[in-house]
Amino acid sequence: MKTWFKISDNSDFTIYNIPFGIFSTPTSKKRIGIAIGESILDLAVAYDLGIFKRLNFPKSVFEANFLNDFISLGKSITNKVRIIIQEELCNENSVLKTSKEAFILQNEAEMHLPVQVGDYTDFYSSIEHATNVGMMFRDPENALLPNWKHIPVGYHGRASSIMVSGKNIHRPKGQVLKPSETLPVFEPSTRVDFELEMGFIIGGQTEVGDSISTKKAEDYIFGKVLFNDWSARDIQKWEYVPLGPFLAKNFASSISPWVVTLEALEPFRIAGPEQTPKVLPHLEYNGFKNFDINLEVSITPNNTDETIVSKSNFKYMYWNMSQQLAHHTSNGCNVNVGDMLASGTISGKSKDSYGSMLELSWAGKNPVKLNNGEERKFIEDYDTVIMRGYCKKDEIRVGFGEVKAQILPSK
Amino acid sequence: MKTWFKISDNSDFTIYNIPFGIFSTPTSKKRIGIAIGESILDLAVAYDLGIFKRLNFPKSVFEANFLNDFISLGKSITNKVRIIIQEELCNENSVLKTSKEAFILQNEAEMHLPVQVGDYTDFYSSIEHATNVGMMFRDPENALLPNWKHIPVGYHGRASSIMVSGKNIHRPKGQVLKPSETLPVFEPSTRVDFELEMGFIIGGQTEVGDSISTKKAEDYIFGKVLFNDWSARDIQKWEYVPLGPFLAKNFASSISPWVVTLEALEPFRIAGPEQTPKVLPHLEYNGFKNFDINLEVSITPNNTDETIVSKSNFKYMYWNMSQQLAHHTSNGCNVNVGDMLASGTISGKSKDSYGSMLELSWAGKNPVKLNNGEERKFIEDYDTVIMRGYCKKDEIRVGFGEVKAQILPSK
Repeated sequence: MKTWFKISDNSDFTIYNIPFGIFSTPTSKKRIGIAIGESILDLAVAYDLGIFKRLNFPKSVFEANFLNDFISLGKSITNKVRIIIQEELCNENSVLKTSKEAFILQNEAEMHLPVQVGDYTDFYSSIEHATNVGMMFRDPENALLPNWKHIPVGYHGRASSIMVSGKNIHRPKGQVLKPSETLPVFEPSTRVDFELEMGFIIGGQTEVGDSISTKKAEDYIFGKVLFNDWSARDIQKWEYVPLGPFLAKNFASSISPWVVTLEALEPFRIAGPEQTPKVLPHLEYNGFKNFDINLEVSITPNNTDETIVSKSNFKYMYWNMSQQLAHHTSNGCNVNVGDMLASGTISGKSKDSYGSMLELSWAGKNPVKLNNGEERKFIEDYDTVIMRGYCKKDEIRVGFGEVKAQILPSK
Repeated sequence: MKTWFKISDNSDFTIYNIPFGIFSTPTSKKRIGIAIGESILDLAVAYDLGIFKRLNFPKSVFEANFLNDFISLGKSITNKVRIIIQEELCNENSVLKTSKEAFILQNEAEMHLPVQVGDYTDFYSSIEHATNVGMMFRDPENALLPNWKHIPVGYHGRASSIMVSGKNIHRPKGQVLKPSETLPVFEPSTRVDFELEMGFIIGGQTEVGDSISTKKAEDYIFGKVLFNDWSARDIQKWEYVPLGPFLAKNFASSISPWVVTLEALEPFRIAGPEQTPKVLPHLEYNGFKNFDINLEVSITPNNTDETIVSKSNFKYMYWNMSQQLAHHTSNGCNVNVGDMLASGTISGKSKDSYGSMLELSWAGKNPVKLNNGEERKFIEDYDTVIMRGYCKKDEIRVGFGEVKAQILPSK
């Protein structure tokens, strides 16, 4: 595709991408836009210019605080919206080309949480991550628990504290049991960590009692974002047996603002890891369900240089999204538009591809060196953590932008 | 208080109660009502009759699908609404007395989910229940885990599958590992269980980073419902280590339709159990924070008699609601109006006061006898489970009605 819109070669937001987000400007309320190059196309303005007139939906869908109503139109509409935008951006005679109001610079807009998240589920689907954690905290010889290769282990997380990139986070306080103590104390966490994850957003609705097969699962996946599952390891250690992580996670999760559609990721499908032992029939799948998405994490201490501390890839996932969604609904649990399902920490095989400080510093034993000469076991006050992701194949590049947040001192 | 409205002596919905719910009739859409005797007072009609005119809010608050907007008015308004209703029902000259449209019989109305639940959290706050579970599955000598007396252990649950009383539930399928097998199978759960709980509904909003003290916590509690935390014990056993219960719980939770306000429960405050060791300062509290609420559970096999299988009481809770909410927000986790926090299974000390079949049948070893001659280890297809709750002190009775659901065969 060749667009008349000026886009730099290394942009995440190419003509092949067209991700959806919610933005506002000093003069306009929240609304839906798509990212293109360094700009945003205002879809409410584009609607007024008539480019969507063959699709039958009201303009109010674009003048919304969240993408939920738009996503609820269904892929038969939302995919057409994306294709029409691509066509217009390639058509030299498009009404968009001469519009003075259609495009806003991204750096002149504020981005907001793209969806109203009903329920949020976090999986634990990277075998490298689960193995690392098992080696550190349990038996190195039996690092994976017995259920791990049979079900995509997951748990419910907190939807209310999912926030958009750029919102900074106060270091959580919590109960921790210090080494060799018998009574806990309540204090600011000293082991704040990131988890490099990706989230997917549900694009359809089911009723209680219904299940979604692996074959149909992608029909229910609208798109993906970068997801930082902030974690407080000391709080987690004290609280998580027997009912799982709670306050160690629910103080904040950060996501990237632009939702990249599953359709934009089509060129980057790739085979997943072999699953041995064979999974049960309801978790079997056909075709390529993994995606080749380059991921990286950086730490920037206050007012100094950025250091890339991890380079990973979404293709490493042992359990794919279709299996996660089939498992999640196999008992009849219903899903709604806007639900968020996150991957779990995405670690690769090599030490520089681990997706958390817990693994990168091996629970603090091997501090990570930063470019400014400092070391990190975990995240310190005023550190900014940035995650980025992009796909590239031949001339096609599709990126996610970034999810960024700074850790502030405890309130 | 003496009302002109005819209410039978054993009614849950006395002049002292005035619980809020969402109902519809064959001729009217969803709206807010209060339960009184065997009737519902339609608050939209009451609004038109002018009884709330000194309060400044629009009628649309009452013509809503959920209580959320009403609750968001704040206790300074919602408490006045409740008091005005009580006054009108005691005033012999009330406009309500002559209205032909204000009252509907409950058995001619359909009840709906009272609130749109944003996030749902389940606690594990009955020491008797936690001890029973620990004795069955872990070390009887150290039944309580080390953290249990220091934090009100909790975990996130699924909001989407919380449903109102009367909605029946298909037996969930799931992965289970049979005794002495090494590979799991996928099949209908054979250990479907109830958990007798109570839920409380959040009535205020906080920002990420904010905490709620035990002193302020009750300002954020709008009211309470009966809560059946349906559980599939065989699915739970296979999945829950290390990240907690997931598919074992998220297929369904049932709640009673009428939200009893905290203010209606004032007369029933009672001291909670002594907490030893002393809790950390942020979990300390003053005053009576437990409530004396009689609870019972019954099983009714298809077309036969009902058997009461448990009689318990909310007063047994080791951790009270104020402590649960203070703990939940101690790390800065934000809450929203409509969030649901459930108690965890409410078991008493005696064997006939246990709040789950797991405990009543001691994991199936001691089947529970039913009035029709049958026995139950867990819940069978077509069994109906009913939970009821009421408070009584002198002439004051305040009840919750019931939460009822039948288990249907797997889909």
